[in-house]
Amino acid sequence: MSTVSNKPEGVDAEVWDRMLRATPAEARRIIRSGAFQAPTSGLCPGYAQANLIVLPKEQAYDFLLFAQRNPKPCPLLEVTEVGAREATICATDCDIATDFPKYRIYRHGELVEETTDVAAYWRDDFVSFVIGCSFSFESELVEAGIEMRHNTMGRNVSMYLTDIDCMPAGSMGGKMVMSMRPIPHDQVVKAVQISGAIPKVHGAPMHIGDPAAIGVRDIAHPEFGDPVDIREGEVPVFWACGVTPQSIVMNSKPEFAITHAPGCMLITDTKNIDLKE
Amino acid sequence: MSTVSNKPEGVDAEVWDRMLRATPAEARRIIRSGAFQAPTSGLCPGYAQANLIVLPKEQAYDFLLFAQRNPKPCPLLEVTEVGAREATICATDCDIATDFPKYRIYRHGELVEETTDVAAYWRDDFVSFVIGCSFSFESELVEAGIEMRHNTMGRNVSMYLTDIDCMPAGSMGGKMVMSMRPIPHDQVVKAVQISGAIPKVHGAPMHIGDPAAIGVRDIAHPEFGDPVDIREGEVPVFWACGVTPQSIVMNSKPEFAITHAPGCMLITDTKNIDLKE
Repeated sequence: MSTVSNKPEGVDAEVWDRMLRATPAEARRIIRSGAFQAPTSGLCPGYAQANLIVLPKEQAYDFLLFAQRNPKPCPLLEVTEVGAREATICATDCDIATDFPKYRIYRHGELVEETTDVAAYWRDDFVSFVIGCSFSFESELVEAGIEMRHNTMGRNVSMYLTDIDCMPAGSMGGKMVMSMRPIPHDQVVKAVQISGAIPKVHGAPMHIGDPAAIGVRDIAHPEFGDPVDIREGEVPVFWACGVTPQSIVMNSKPEFAITHAPGCMLITDTKNIDLKE
Repeated sequence: MSTVSNKPEGVDAEVWDRMLRATPAEARRIIRSGAFQAPTSGLCPGYAQANLIVLPKEQAYDFLLFAQRNPKPCPLLEVTEVGAREATICATDCDIATDFPKYRIYRHGELVEETTDVAAYWRDDFVSFVIGCSFSFESELVEAGIEMRHNTMGRNVSMYLTDIDCMPAGSMGGKMVMSMRPIPHDQVVKAVQISGAIPKVHGAPMHIGDPAAIGVRDIAHPEFGDPVDIREGEVPVFWACGVTPQSIVMNSKPEFAITHAPGCMLITDTKNIDLKE
């Protein structure tokens, strides 16, 4: 399967070459070693990638209910046992504290640090929410002949903070984050149908067309990730995004939270096709 | 839409006639009055019906996680705020303590009472889990020309305690309950495809054929509901069932739990077609 991905800036060419040929388990070990600290879009095509939010048990019920009420931005692939650092359902030999290329630390809703390893922060009362990612349907879109502009430009996908409210749950609430891909107008319906067939990884788009209709003020300046070119005849298509929990954390201000850095995902052992059940 | 349902035994003919013509809100009011205490299969076709489990907040996180890990038997339509008796997402003007035709009370995993109103038992620390029901796809199966034998016999659907383990979560675990419908062999594929298109109400079957393969010992004696005739050329088809939480309660023995009585469901305002998103 061709992913038509170009090397992200700053990544060592030899490491990139190993990542392109790696199994998910091998990719996690390379990431764990610290050798790869970049966005993971296009890697291990056919396997699900995942977003992360780690919260103290005290906030876990509210967030679990938030995810139940907001399955489009927060499709849960796995919720770990309290205190466990290992994922066991979506992957094996998987350390949640080291196997994402980059993490963000939030204290009372403020982003205080970006780091490549959160083992030093781990606590016995942490619960990890592993959330499906739109990169899962990207490989199918590419297979169907739809260019993923951020991959061909060697960039992170564009993500926007919209003015669409999530349904709140207890202490958790806020606006939805959406990822955007420019799609030629004659491929939009195909993109809806292909992504819609995988509801466990965000499913069909939330919005097609005018960015202003969902409160996106400046398409050239995404709140997360990188801008990409939108060419003549292309339509911006927006999907619910697993960075939404970071918007929720910023709004709801839990005492402490760890997330992945946008675009820098966990590569799981779960095949996308098994998410279609 | 024809439901080809016959009046359940013991139901007043005039009440049955009103139920057959009722909107979901009207049906809930008739049930709230105590006039209808029977299975709800076939009523208000096109609208989702729902299973129930009510637990103290102390067990709510474990059960919410159990439902997340077992979406086939426990597809959540709504989880209420702590202490609230009203459903607000799947219906309006809906009192969870009165709008099911019949309830079951469990203490430490023992079924201690069956009753038509649980208002007297309500506590400030209760959380209600409203769970999708296979009756949602029954109206589509009937539309597609597939007979629902329990409806034409005026009986409750057959439900079996299988030996298939659910994935446990904290204090919650146990075997899966499945509903069974006999389907002519040349309609089985159609039944899989139609039900599979609505994953939020149990989705595709768990098993087709030999009851022994899933630990069903005696097809003529279901653990819940009524037996139905299986005719020459028909195949028993098994779907994950929202009575599974009652199996979990019997196994996990929470201090207190309220469930619906099998087959006696909440009729919601949610259209089945809106569960296909």
